[in-house]
Amino acid sequence: MAEEEEVPAILVLASSFGIDIKSQNPPKYRFLEAFSSNLPLLQFLQQQQTLPPSVRAIICNALKPVTADVIRSLPSLGLVVTASAGTDHIDLTECRRRRIQVVNIGGLFTADVADMAVALLIDVLFKISAGDRFARNWGLSKPLGFPFGSKLGGKRVGIIGLGRIGGEVAKRLEAFDCIIKYHSRNKNPSVSYTFYSNVVDLASNSDVLVLCCPLTEQTRHLINKEVMLALGKDGIIINVGRGALIDEKELVQCLVKGEIRGAGLDVFEDEPNVPKGLFPLDNVVLSPHAAALTLDGFKDSCEYVTQSLDTFFSIKPQVS
Amino acid sequence: MAEEEEVPAILVLASSFGIDIKSQNPPKYRFLEAFSSNLPLLQFLQQQQTLPPSVRAIICNALKPVTADVIRSLPSLGLVVTASAGTDHIDLTECRRRRIQVVNIGGLFTADVADMAVALLIDVLFKISAGDRFARNWGLSKPLGFPFGSKLGGKRVGIIGLGRIGGEVAKRLEAFDCIIKYHSRNKNPSVSYTFYSNVVDLASNSDVLVLCCPLTEQTRHLINKEVMLALGKDGIIINVGRGALIDEKELVQCLVKGEIRGAGLDVFEDEPNVPKGLFPLDNVVLSPHAAALTLDGFKDSCEYVTQSLDTFFSIKPQVS
Repeated sequence: MAEEEEVPAILVLASSFGIDIKSQNPPKYRFLEAFSSNLPLLQFLQQQQTLPPSVRAIICNALKPVTADVIRSLPSLGLVVTASAGTDHIDLTECRRRRIQVVNIGGLFTADVADMAVALLIDVLFKISAGDRFARNWGLSKPLGFPFGSKLGGKRVGIIGLGRIGGEVAKRLEAFDCIIKYHSRNKNPSVSYTFYSNVVDLASNSDVLVLCCPLTEQTRHLINKEVMLALGKDGIIINVGRGALIDEKELVQCLVKGEIRGAGLDVFEDEPNVPKGLFPLDNVVLSPHAAALTLDGFKDSCEYVTQSLDTFFSIKPQVS
Repeated sequence: MAEEEEVPAILVLASSFGIDIKSQNPPKYRFLEAFSSNLPLLQFLQQQQTLPPSVRAIICNALKPVTADVIRSLPSLGLVVTASAGTDHIDLTECRRRRIQVVNIGGLFTADVADMAVALLIDVLFKISAGDRFARNWGLSKPLGFPFGSKLGGKRVGIIGLGRIGGEVAKRLEAFDCIIKYHSRNKNPSVSYTFYSNVVDLASNSDVLVLCCPLTEQTRHLINKEVMLALGKDGIIINVGRGALIDEKELVQCLVKGEIRGAGLDVFEDEPNVPKGLFPLDNVVLSPHAAALTLDGFKDSCEYVTQSLDTFFSIKPQVS
């Protein structure tokens, strides 16, 4: 284990989280920058000689999985900080077993993710991205040759997961005169929105489904073909949760066949691989897991990550 | 002039407004479909032999100007119905002189246009359209290679024209925790938003300007270089009013030089010609005057146009 006076070694999996931390002088941490290598993480760690055994914390984000194998290769690991709300990319069972602390970004991105959900919904309904493609050639086309979009007001929006993010999505869409319904593990007595204990029932009674719940074994492929058929030909799916909440193969089929009207997707099952079947479609809006990629949000999350490290390492010595 | 029993002749300038009307049986109107000809309107009218002198109404939209020359060539014209909120494309002076009634679509598109304004703003901030272009190639690029966007919450939004549309934009953006300010001909005592009598002052104190006012001689090029420089390098302009509210050449320059951060434009000075200088830019979102192009809105406006004709022609005989 690391000595009292030693500068803690931190394994950094994502390029974007070293900047603010590295500018500290004198350096509080030694950074092992896995992102700068093209090797798979485990291989990268095997190549390093001295540092991995002393690594005491990992910094990652939703795109950088922390598997049981990675955790096992780091005997001194005590902390995983993820710059994401979800923790599904981290092997929580192994963390629990080893008593490794897992810190997520909490509510830091709540507003951004909710904004993204609304943005994707309006974009699908109003065909903003498709319109932008069209307008860049507008002079050459007929003025009104652009296909019609659809109103937002009055739409029945079924929110799946009425936590922090879902609640903010609801607040925003109420201002657009949408009718809010929801499915959640439990009914929330403090809201007046109609609750559905069953996702198929919610889909049958909604024009739009917005996925805001975490990915767990219970929610994996929650949106399957049955749910999509219940949502129907005029239905739209917005996903700002995690890609695997949807059976992505079925989603592509439903979109191609017109069994649902459209989709706005900020997340995918196998990021950064977007299903190629979506590329030719004008009824989908694709976003590269970008909800939290704002400059202000980035600064905030850098601060949060630094703070999480500082808290962990300043508290530790007092405990031991 | 047309006889009592004669079926009134209607000049239709836009292709999209004959559908519902033509399905009437027996036909209440004879339609002169100028949109089906490639000729300029005046030339088209000169080519027609008998009908133009009997034309009693025009149906148009914002993309189809009704000039003084057109009006002069139609001696029996008594009504112009435009499927748009604005009437700046109609020579109102000539209409007044001839006592020709001008009917616009009123508040029918209010919510759609407000939705479009918010959609364009979020799109510029979050780079949705640019992200969609990026995501369609995401697998090939670095996961986090996409440039950062910017938060919506807390932004100071200066609304220019706090009428029906401006009010709805304010309502929506309040739900995103934006700070609303406005400029209008007169201060509105029923709202608590900060009023600026001067557009440059509003721009200096805003992160975003949303243009929702009608185009008049007073508002033409209201957004000039001085206003854009006052808005500044982090500023964003959203235009759902009319293209000529902005000095478009200066806008392109400011966007290219980074003197403002970005723009979301549903309208242009010389539609359907979008300034070519905008095409290579990723900090603009272009929309082909599509705010009202929803399927539901289209049905509503067809009904509204039919109703306006019916009202006009059923009332007329009683008056004469």
